[in-house]
Amino acid sequence: MERPIYSLADIVARFGGQVLGDAQTAVSQIATLEKAGQGHIAFLANGKYRKQLEDSHASAVILGAADAELTQRPRIVAANPYSYFAKLSAFLNPLRDYASGIHPSAVIETGAQVSPDAHIGANVWVGEGARIGARSVVMAGCTVGEHVTLGEQVRLYPNVSVYHGCTLGSHVIVHSGAVIGADGFGIAMDEGRWLKIPQIGRVVIGDYVEIGANTTIDRGALDDTVIEEGVKLDNQIQVAHNVRIGAHTAIAGCVGIAGSARIGRHCRIGGGAIILGHLQVADEVEVSAGTVITKSVDKGSYTGTYPFSDNQAWRRNAAQLRHLDEMAKRIRQLEHDIATLKGGEA
Amino acid sequence: MERPIYSLADIVARFGGQVLGDAQTAVSQIATLEKAGQGHIAFLANGKYRKQLEDSHASAVILGAADAELTQRPRIVAANPYSYFAKLSAFLNPLRDYASGIHPSAVIETGAQVSPDAHIGANVWVGEGARIGARSVVMAGCTVGEHVTLGEQVRLYPNVSVYHGCTLGSHVIVHSGAVIGADGFGIAMDEGRWLKIPQIGRVVIGDYVEIGANTTIDRGALDDTVIEEGVKLDNQIQVAHNVRIGAHTAIAGCVGIAGSARIGRHCRIGGGAIILGHLQVADEVEVSAGTVITKSVDKGSYTGTYPFSDNQAWRRNAAQLRHLDEMAKRIRQLEHDIATLKGGEA
Amino acid sequence: MERPIYSLADIVARFGGQVLGDAQTAVSQIATLEKAGQGHIAFLANGKYRKQLEDSHASAVILGAADAELTQRPRIVAANPYSYFAKLSAFLNPLRDYASGIHPSAVIETGAQVSPDAHIGANVWVGEGARIGARSVVMAGCTVGEHVTLGEQVRLYPNVSVYHGCTLGSHVIVHSGAVIGADGFGIAMDEGRWLKIPQIGRVVIGDYVEIGANTTIDRGALDDTVIEEGVKLDNQIQVAHNVRIGAHTAIAGCVGIAGSARIGRHCRIGGGAIILGHLQVADEVEVSAGTVITKSVDKGSYTGTYPFSDNQAWRRNAAQLRHLDEMAKRIRQLEHDIATLKGGEA
Repeated sequence: MERPIYSLADIVARFGGQVLGDAQTAVSQIATLEKAGQGHIAFLANGKYRKQLEDSHASAVILGAADAELTQRPRIVAANPYSYFAKLSAFLNPLRDYASGIHPSAVIETGAQVSPDAHIGANVWVGEGARIGARSVVMAGCTVGEHVTLGEQVRLYPNVSVYHGCTLGSHVIVHSGAVIGADGFGIAMDEGRWLKIPQIGRVVIGDYVEIGANTTIDRGALDDTVIEEGVKLDNQIQVAHNVRIGAHTAIAGCVGIAGSARIGRHCRIGGGAIILGHLQVADEVEVSAGTVITKSVDKGSYTGTYPFSDNQAWRRNAAQLRHLDEMAKRIRQLEHDIATLKGGEA
Repeated sequence: MERPIYSLADIVARFGGQVLGDAQTAVSQIATLEKAGQGHIAFLANGKYRKQLEDSHASAVILGAADAELTQRPRIVAANPYSYFAKLSAFLNPLRDYASGIHPSAVIETGAQVSPDAHIGANVWVGEGARIGARSVVMAGCTVGEHVTLGEQVRLYPNVSVYHGCTLGSHVIVHSGAVIGADGFGIAMDEGRWLKIPQIGRVVIGDYVEIGANTTIDRGALDDTVIEEGVKLDNQIQVAHNVRIGAHTAIAGCVGIAGSARIGRHCRIGGGAIILGHLQVADEVEVSAGTVITKSVDKGSYTGTYPFSDNQAWRRNAAQLRHLDEMAKRIRQLEHDIATLKGGEA
Repeated sequence: MERPIYSLADIVARFGGQVLGDAQTAVSQIATLEKAGQGHIAFLANGKYRKQLEDSHASAVILGAADAELTQRPRIVAANPYSYFAKLSAFLNPLRDYASGIHPSAVIETGAQVSPDAHIGANVWVGEGARIGARSVVMAGCTVGEHVTLGEQVRLYPNVSVYHGCTLGSHVIVHSGAVIGADGFGIAMDEGRWLKIPQIGRVVIGDYVEIGANTTIDRGALDDTVIEEGVKLDNQIQVAHNVRIGAHTAIAGCVGIAGSARIGRHCRIGGGAIILGHLQVADEVEVSAGTVITKSVDKGSYTGTYPFSDNQAWRRNAAQLRHLDEMAKRIRQLEHDIATLKGGEA
């Protein structure tokens, strides 16, 4: 495939920043410093990668003002090199385009409205009353339930399932295997058996949300589960019923969020963390990977993982965990004894 | 959509309980106290929600005898208000109905038997020799492997995969993306390479089981993996080969159960917990979210999570975990020294 | 189904080992000691199952030299009985065969090359430029993206999604719901909003890899995510972008591996473990279930889980974790006081 070519001058005309060195240097793709070659522009995350910078065969590099003189090769100096790199890469690597139209193998039930600009792939099912907005792409094997609304330029990768009545804003991306709107886990004990509680809320997803592969977001029990605009969810996240996730929060893979938890805006939650139900996580909270959040938290950074060690050391130390309370009491006793002895000497 | 309307008198005639206030009050749907309006009946979980009860616009409310006089609005007093709510909601919100018949895009292999009352959705695949019982609903994109048996009134939401030979009882609900009967993780080391061990058991699932989105239940290695009747599994649970889960056990999302573990009846297992393999969990065990169960347990409630704190406090305290054994020794030494000093005073 | 029958003499002619007892004993299937009957050959993992061995109705048994005289029934003595069992079981239970050819409901885009020996099941989608090798089986509902390469004798179980450009070697098995090549979680903060960073690397998977149900392996951000030959991944594992997993490593269910982590060869990682990003796990490392690996590790065995106990004991002991640093200081103070007191006595 022929890729379009841009000069550094073209790039700064579009995205800002300052060229140092030959502004006519031509690039067509982003690459890492290690793998970059002719026609590639690389990105220096950090001055400590100076060695890779020296050895790189990149035609050009994006870096911050503080690192501008680490190399003399053609370069773009940007205020925020990482977001500059993101914007340039998005420009050089637009989402794959799919022709508008409905594949003959797709099944569109009566009353569904598909924008003529949308792409509906092979073997897709669209339930009655669903609405699919302009330039949205629904890839092979997806199912879009009854009365679902997809905004404009939504992309569902293959084999996504969206249950009836859910709403996705515009520019939402959902990766394969994700399930949106399955029943929340609502059960009531009745004489030794669980009764299922119908889940009659929906899932409502804001604009510019991205949802990773095999992530599941359950519909609300009575009210809705809400994912606000700009939220980024990695793979295999579980979002239970009636959760609300505030705008621009980013959540790494394998996180579980229990029912009715409220997560604030601009939070960052590490992989494999668990957030228990019916609690509040304030705005701008950071949670480390693997941490279990068991009560509401204010703005701040939180961790709660057991530090790993080699098996023998772990076994020796962990055995004491069952005696911690007793250890605390013995220390108090010792302090008391010492005080008495000191007193006795007085 | 027109919804049917019922008076409180109709409802207690059907489900029991006692009406206080106007028994002709008409309701058609359940709602939360906060969101309820005209025609809604709400549910008071707990006397502490008294404020919401006061402010609610619900036409009626379900509550327990102890709370019966917290309001004067029309109300139903029930012995177990939560299960009453579940039953009433199930009555007002039956599972969505699908017309019987096989969608023309579905592929039914030779020798498969589909009840004429069943619904087979778009792009479904049913393997040879499979049997699908009366009033079962298999939604779009599902695959039902060779010689699978589905009982009556089973519901498979879109994109469920059931492997060959597995058996599901009646009234089983399986949510999208769930995989039933994939190979268990059976491998044997042979001269530096793993050999795959064929997994020739099945998955056998009892009546009234519900299985959450993207949950996986592996087939047995030689014998079967068994999920007994009435078990409720939330999303993204992993059940390994040869596990047995006892009747009416409820398991929250993201739990992992390793091979050949036996889980008792009426257990409740919190989200993200891990149950190691080849162990026994007795009946009526409760496991807290995030806990790793490493050996067999009797009836009781178990926890094993590291309490989270802000990063700095965590770092300071967690650093000592690597010295716990040494701390224990130093306390013993101190106790010995104190005893000696006291003795010296004697 | 009629199963072929083999004598113990046939079996040792093919797989080695030594027959004790009647070499003409006929067997057709593997079973556990408990469930085995006429025509079954069972496997003695361990001398401690002597009781089951005695009670078994198996026609024959595989065991090690040390256990050869625990029974007098017909038996095969093997150097490595477990891998012997694996080989014999694979011989008796070959992968289910599917006829070559493309199901009429499958959609093969222009320029895709499907080997005439391959099986393409119902409702499969194969993107343009994809190549599918000889004797590969792509089951119902799978999607094979543009320019994907599948080697020979690959098996994709139903509803697997492979994104564009990814490469799978030969003899790779992928279970239902697995997603290969979804975008890695690459985002950059820009004035309060997350920008998506295009993920332009691929996933490259070596020969004889097996991938469990609902496991997700993300494509690289710029370079590739690489799974080397012979790696065995259980269900619901998350492999982030740019991870490399060394040959013959085995990873149990629900493990999460963060971006750019390097896992060595011949590692064994327990269920639910988390490996943080940008770190190195050496060859032959063992990680216990539920452990969070937060920094690079050399060859060895590592654990870091909080030991569970009953709720009350846990609460009492865990409360002290927030005072560990203070406890350490108090012990030092006590030691100092004791030294002073002893000195005072001198």
